[in-house]
Amino acid sequence: MRVQYEEMVRQFEKVLLSRGMDGPSAKLSATMIAETSLEGVYTHGANRFYSYVKSIDDKIVDVDARAELVGRFGALERWDAKMGPGNLNAHACMTRAIELAKESTIACVALANNSHWMRPGTYGLMAAQEDCIGILWTNTLPLMPAWGGKDAKVGNNPLVLAIPSKDGPVLVDAAMSQFSYGKMETYKREGRPLPFDGGFDSEGNPTRDAGAIMESKRPMPMGFWKGTSLALALDLIAAALSGGRTTHSIGNEMEKEVSQVFIAISLSALPDRAAIEDKISASLADLKASDAMDTPVRFPGEKRKTLREENMKDGIPVDKKIWEKICSL
Amino acid sequence: MRVQYEEMVRQFEKVLLSRGMDGPSAKLSATMIAETSLEGVYTHGANRFYSYVKSIDDKIVDVDARAELVGRFGALERWDAKMGPGNLNAHACMTRAIELAKESTIACVALANNSHWMRPGTYGLMAAQEDCIGILWTNTLPLMPAWGGKDAKVGNNPLVLAIPSKDGPVLVDAAMSQFSYGKMETYKREGRPLPFDGGFDSEGNPTRDAGAIMESKRPMPMGFWKGTSLALALDLIAAALSGGRTTHSIGNEMEKEVSQVFIAISLSALPDRAAIEDKISASLADLKASDAMDTPVRFPGEKRKTLREENMKDGIPVDKKIWEKICSL
Repeated sequence: MRVQYEEMVRQFEKVLLSRGMDGPSAKLSATMIAETSLEGVYTHGANRFYSYVKSIDDKIVDVDARAELVGRFGALERWDAKMGPGNLNAHACMTRAIELAKESTIACVALANNSHWMRPGTYGLMAAQEDCIGILWTNTLPLMPAWGGKDAKVGNNPLVLAIPSKDGPVLVDAAMSQFSYGKMETYKREGRPLPFDGGFDSEGNPTRDAGAIMESKRPMPMGFWKGTSLALALDLIAAALSGGRTTHSIGNEMEKEVSQVFIAISLSALPDRAAIEDKISASLADLKASDAMDTPVRFPGEKRKTLREENMKDGIPVDKKIWEKICSL
Repeated sequence: MRVQYEEMVRQFEKVLLSRGMDGPSAKLSATMIAETSLEGVYTHGANRFYSYVKSIDDKIVDVDARAELVGRFGALERWDAKMGPGNLNAHACMTRAIELAKESTIACVALANNSHWMRPGTYGLMAAQEDCIGILWTNTLPLMPAWGGKDAKVGNNPLVLAIPSKDGPVLVDAAMSQFSYGKMETYKREGRPLPFDGGFDSEGNPTRDAGAIMESKRPMPMGFWKGTSLALALDLIAAALSGGRTTHSIGNEMEKEVSQVFIAISLSALPDRAAIEDKISASLADLKASDAMDTPVRFPGEKRKTLREENMKDGIPVDKKIWEKICSL
């Protein structure tokens, strides 16, 4: 089925208000989550709303807590998220990183003890909108084995790189596993095989069966050994800078108190801003002029705008059962 | 054959001096290159020395030019490498980024117009040695197709993440292709197949034949679409921040005037430095306690120390033909 964007925002907002969230926060949170679905990232939008609310109902997320400044160290600030709503905390920290970058060109906010921040790309787009490069990531609970191991030891620690451009921001939003758990859930629900081996089953055989991978907790890292190496490094950096937890100390039981890093670099501070725009544009045009194997080559983030327009017009596709569940909240 | 470390440094130094490089620079450059082989990264050490010298002989690299400050913008500086020796320029910029990070905790040096910087990890280790996290990368000439394309459009843009730790720095040094060209050269020379499909042959079939991939210029990105997306973003950021060239503007003909980014984040600035050490240590211990499929799981950078010690004692393994070529320079 399809749900109109405005209706989705309204429904999310209503539910969040019913959980005691203050008005402006409910509006912002609802908007960010609905926009995620609007832009086609269904796995991290409406599909996750139920678990967002459940974590409030279960008192895992404190609906009243908000990230607070812990200390400033030059162009880096540490914040403590106090297990408040993850997307609101991440929004506040990205806003602050951008503000700091306007002072010092490059700046970083490191956030400890956050709950799930929903769609990582949301905060990259915020940076791009303020003419900043955004480099940000989170750690997670242990979700995949180290390369050559069988038991889940590293997070899939999504990394976002965002670059403003007049063709629409370049947006890379990549989990360090080949497929995110959200994506695997979708394939499982739809009964489709993954397009590539996405992990190992419980016997250690490579498989495209998303359900088997979710059960074995053995997803394939992106680029094999490279993915788990990068995931480990991102985890350690996030925990070190924020003073928060590593994937190891988050533990297997439940994802809470994650560590996140928000780096912003202001392009407005540079004297050749127009030339930067031109060279980004030329690169994207060149990429799109690729001799394609099949469908035309697009840059990362390119389809956002079209999907946004389509879904704004036709309504946002959402699984009927998921929407009914949301409406019953 | 094996060559003693001291002999290797001496030989490199002698050759560089014969090309008109000043004494301290020749010593530093020779040391960095020999250390690369000493630590087991043969592809980017002795194996690359001949092409390093050839680029000086061919007047592509200006043996007398050194990176110079172009401008300071808060905690970010732009430098121009003027096509001087790539590793000396990168060394200078990493040194400067560390210096700046001691002032502002996070800092960035963006470098335009550099020649090949040899082993990326060298500069990550420099950061770790000064108790900084190092995040650095370079762009390259177009070396691989965008995902879904046939013609080389993006660089393989190696990314380094380095984290100081008492167990030896965690060091991730990863090209955005599944296998670097240096690694593929080694497999080709040794007539061995790659351990995984590393690209496509000229007909578009996935292959483990390194020679076929080098010919088609169609290496597989790490993590398929993820690798080329990340590579594109790293390229655009490096060119934007440095004011230098994108992969597209470097062009296909020859790798010169690359753009590089050196971000340093000082851990010494943080009040809980000892706790950071402890949590990194605990994470690494946990990772190493993985239930292994085959050989024990190691953290990225772990084997460095052992290899260093072994090669210091027994001499550094080097292909006889390569060493003879170096000695004839």
